[in-house]
Amino acid sequence: MKLKLYEKLFHELERAIKDGVLRAGERLPSIRQTCRTRQLSVTTVTRAYLQLESQGLVDSRPQSGYFVRARQAEPASEPLLPSTPPGTSTDVDVSQLVLSTLKSIRSRRAVPLGSPYPDPSLFPWLRVHQQIGGIAKRLRDERSVLDDLPPGNPELIRQIARRHLESGLAADPGEVIVTAGATEAINLCLQAVARPGEIIAVESPTYYAMLHAIERMGMRAVEIATDPHEGIDLGALARAIERQSVAACMVMPNFQNPLGFMMSDEKKRELVALCTRHGLPLIENGVYNELYYGEAPPSTLKSFDTQGLVLHCNSFSKSLTAGVRIGWALPGRYRQEVERLKFLNTLSTPTLPQLGVAEYLKNDGFEHHLRRVRQTLAQQADIMRSMVRRFFPEHTRLSRPQGGYVLWVELAPQVDTMALYREALERGLTIGPGRMFSTSNAYGHFMRLNFSYAWSPEIEAGVIELGRMAAAMSGRNAP
Amino acid sequence: MKLKLYEKLFHELERAIKDGVLRAGERLPSIRQTCRTRQLSVTTVTRAYLQLESQGLVDSRPQSGYFVRARQAEPASEPLLPSTPPGTSTDVDVSQLVLSTLKSIRSRRAVPLGSPYPDPSLFPWLRVHQQIGGIAKRLRDERSVLDDLPPGNPELIRQIARRHLESGLAADPGEVIVTAGATEAINLCLQAVARPGEIIAVESPTYYAMLHAIERMGMRAVEIATDPHEGIDLGALARAIERQSVAACMVMPNFQNPLGFMMSDEKKRELVALCTRHGLPLIENGVYNELYYGEAPPSTLKSFDTQGLVLHCNSFSKSLTAGVRIGWALPGRYRQEVERLKFLNTLSTPTLPQLGVAEYLKNDGFEHHLRRVRQTLAQQADIMRSMVRRFFPEHTRLSRPQGGYVLWVELAPQVDTMALYREALERGLTIGPGRMFSTSNAYGHFMRLNFSYAWSPEIEAGVIELGRMAAAMSGRNAP
Repeated sequence: MKLKLYEKLFHELERAIKDGVLRAGERLPSIRQTCRTRQLSVTTVTRAYLQLESQGLVDSRPQSGYFVRARQAEPASEPLLPSTPPGTSTDVDVSQLVLSTLKSIRSRRAVPLGSPYPDPSLFPWLRVHQQIGGIAKRLRDERSVLDDLPPGNPELIRQIARRHLESGLAADPGEVIVTAGATEAINLCLQAVARPGEIIAVESPTYYAMLHAIERMGMRAVEIATDPHEGIDLGALARAIERQSVAACMVMPNFQNPLGFMMSDEKKRELVALCTRHGLPLIENGVYNELYYGEAPPSTLKSFDTQGLVLHCNSFSKSLTAGVRIGWALPGRYRQEVERLKFLNTLSTPTLPQLGVAEYLKNDGFEHHLRRVRQTLAQQADIMRSMVRRFFPEHTRLSRPQGGYVLWVELAPQVDTMALYREALERGLTIGPGRMFSTSNAYGHFMRLNFSYAWSPEIEAGVIELGRMAAAMSGRNAP
Repeated sequence: MKLKLYEKLFHELERAIKDGVLRAGERLPSIRQTCRTRQLSVTTVTRAYLQLESQGLVDSRPQSGYFVRARQAEPASEPLLPSTPPGTSTDVDVSQLVLSTLKSIRSRRAVPLGSPYPDPSLFPWLRVHQQIGGIAKRLRDERSVLDDLPPGNPELIRQIARRHLESGLAADPGEVIVTAGATEAINLCLQAVARPGEIIAVESPTYYAMLHAIERMGMRAVEIATDPHEGIDLGALARAIERQSVAACMVMPNFQNPLGFMMSDEKKRELVALCTRHGLPLIENGVYNELYYGEAPPSTLKSFDTQGLVLHCNSFSKSLTAGVRIGWALPGRYRQEVERLKFLNTLSTPTLPQLGVAEYLKNDGFEHHLRRVRQTLAQQADIMRSMVRRFFPEHTRLSRPQGGYVLWVELAPQVDTMALYREALERGLTIGPGRMFSTSNAYGHFMRLNFSYAWSPEIEAGVIELGRMAAAMSGRNAP
C-alpha cells in the first residue's frame, strides 16, 4: 500500500529518532521549516508530528516546538477508574436528550466531535450506492414485499453468515434475521426476552441505544460496575442477579461505546457461563466488531454460547454505510419470536438496500477497505488522545480504546458537561455529554469525543477550545 | 386515453345492447366465434363479456353462453350483513397465523388471490427504482444518518404534504413523520396513545395489521359492530366506550380492508365528534385512500379533526411500490411523542428510498398513473364479483368495494376457511382466511380475495376451483 505523505514523514522522523540522528531533548525542525524544506502542507506536517507525539517519541512545548523525548513505556495520563453505579434499578428516560443532541449535531458547520457516527469518507458508501443504483435499474421484476418478508433477503443472509465465518463465528444462516439497523435488532431481541417493568442489567456507562431499547419497552435498568479496560464486573453482575430478579443482560463486549475496551476471551467465556447458570438471556451488541486495532478480529460472546442464550445484534452502519439502515440479529433460541416481532414492527426491510449490500459483500472489497479503516482509526485514536492530553486540564482522565472511534473523557467533578455541551454548541463545536450514557447522573462530568474524522486545523482548534472551556469550568488551568 | 381491446369490445357490445341491436333474452355470439370474427384472444373476449356481466347487461348460463338481460337496478347477490361481535375485550394473537399465511403466498406459483398486496405491475415501481438508481449514482456527498433523523427527509415531507393538499387535507409539513411503511406508523401512533393492557376499539372485521400493533404492545382489542356498507356502528362504539375504559379507537374509514366500504362524510364527522367528546385518540389508517373508484378522493377523518386527536397513518406501499417501505404519520397533538418513538424504534428511515420517492413525486406522473389504476381496479372489482357469483355456491355473500382491491366473501357457516386455505394451497391457490381479521372466531367461514391481478384463464380457473371446494365443504352444489 502506498504511504500517505504524513505517514512517510512520520516514518522518516521515527527512524531518525530510533537511529539516534535526533537525540532525547533535541528540537525537531519547526513545522514551518519542514513545510518549506519538504514542500508539504501544514496539515501533513502537523499530523506527522502529532503522531510522533502520540507514539511517545516527542513532546510538544507551547511556544517552543517539538522535542525528542527520553524513552518511556507509557505516555503520562491518568487512567480511568472502574465505575461504581448504585446497584438499584431505575426507570429510563434519556431518549429526548439524545434526540435533541443528535439534531444539534446534524448542522454540518458543527465540528463533529459529538457525533455518534464515523466519518462517512472512511467508508465505501459510494460503491454501495452504485450497487443499489445498478440493481435498481436492472431489476425488471418487481420484488414484492412478500419476497423479502422476515427473515430477509436470502443472498444478504448468506453474505452475513459468510462474514461471521471469516471472523471466527460459525453462524447458521437460518438463524439470521435482517433488521432496520442494529437499533431494531436490539429492540426486537429485548422484547423477545423480557416484559415491561422487568429489570435489564447493563454496563455503566452504557451505550445509550441500549438504554433506548429499555425505555421504549417500559423496562427498568440496573447499571453494573464496569472496568474501563476489562469490561463489566462479573462479581457485581452476579450479586445483582442474586439480589433482584434480572430478566436479561445487555452488553457491548468489543470496543464498548463509550469506554472502548475489549473484553478478554476468558472473561467473555465467564460472562456467558454466568448467564447460562442463571438461564439469563444475554444480548450482545457487536456493531464495532469490524473496527479492531489488533491483528485479528475480536471474538463474540455468541461463539462461547452453547445454549442459544446469546442474542447477537449487529449492523453495517459502522463499517459500510449507515444510510442503508441494514442490521441483523442472531437470536439463538429466540429466533422464531424475533422473526415474528420483526414482522409486527416494520413488516420487512426495504428491498434495494438489502440487495445492494449483498452485492457489495459478494464482490470482496470489504476486507481490503476495512484494513485501511482500522489502521486509520488506530492512528487517530493516538492523535486524539495526544491532543486531549496536551490541551485539556491536568488530571483529565482518558480511555484507551482498542477499537472503534470514540474516546471517553473524565473532567473534574465540578464540570457539568451538559453546560459544556450547550456552550460548545454556540461556538460550532459538539461533544457527547456523559449524561446520555447512564440512567443515573454518574457521568455528568464525562464526555465522549469522536475521533473518526481526520486531523485538521479545525478539529485541533476545536479540541483546544474545549480544553479551554473545561479548564474555565473546572477552575483549573490548562497545562 | 387509448382503449384496450377488451374495453373497445365491451363498449361496442354495450352500445349494441343499449341501442336494442341485441334485445333482452337474446344470445351473444359465443366467445369462440367472436375470437374468430374479430381476431381477438380468448382472454380479451372473456374479459369484455365478464365486464358486461358485472355491469348487469348480460347473464351467463352454464353450457349455453351469454344472454342479454332484462334491465334491473342491481345484480342478484346476497348482501353482507352487519357484524355482531361479542363486545368484550380480548388478548390478541393473530400474527403467527398471518406470517405463515404470507410466507405460503410468497411462492410465485400460487395464484395470488390471498395476497394482501396489489399486483406490482399496476404501479410505476420501475420509475421509482430508476429515480433511486439515478440518485444513488449522483449523490457525491454521503448523507449521514444525521441528515435523515426523524421526522425524515424534508423534500419527501413537503411532497407528502402537497399530496394531502391535493386530496383536500391541508396537512402541516411540520406534523409529518416518515416511517418504515404504514406498519411502523400504526405501531408508533398506538404506542404514543396507549399502554400495555389497555383496550383499543376496532372495527369487526378489522385489518390484521391493526391487530398486530395491538398484539405487539400487549394491549387488548374490543371489536365493534361494523356495517359492511357504512362502517363502524357509532352507537355500538359509544356503548363500548361507556361500558369499559377504552384508550383509543383504530379504524380504516376508506375502502376498509377487508370490507371495502367508504364511510360517508357525515359519519366521519360524527365519529370524530364522538371520540372528541370522550377525549379518545383516533388512529386512522388511510393506505387505500388513493385507490378510490369514485370521481373525487375520499375525505379523511383528519380533515374533520379540530383537537389534534386524529393520528393519520399512511404509506406508498399500496399506491406506488411496497419495496421502498416508506410510510408516514400525521400524529396531531402526539407528534413529538411519535417522533421520539420513531427514533427509538428504528432510528431513521433509509436515505435512498426517501430521496427516490420524493423525486418521483416531484415529477408529477403520479396522478396520471393513479387514474389508470383506479379505473382498472373498479373494473376488476366487477369482474371478480361476477366470477364469484357465477362459480360459488348459492347464498354466498359478497362485499361491494368502493375502492381498494379486496373482496370479502361469506360462505355457508359450516365452511372452515382455514381448512379451505390449506386445501387450496396444495393446489397452488391462496386465499386470505377470515380468521386473520378478528380476535374472535367470528369470521371462520369468511375469506378475502385479492382482485388486483388482471383477469386471466388461471385466475378464473382458480375461482372456479375455490367455488367447487367451497361447495363441497358446504354440502351444497354450485349453481
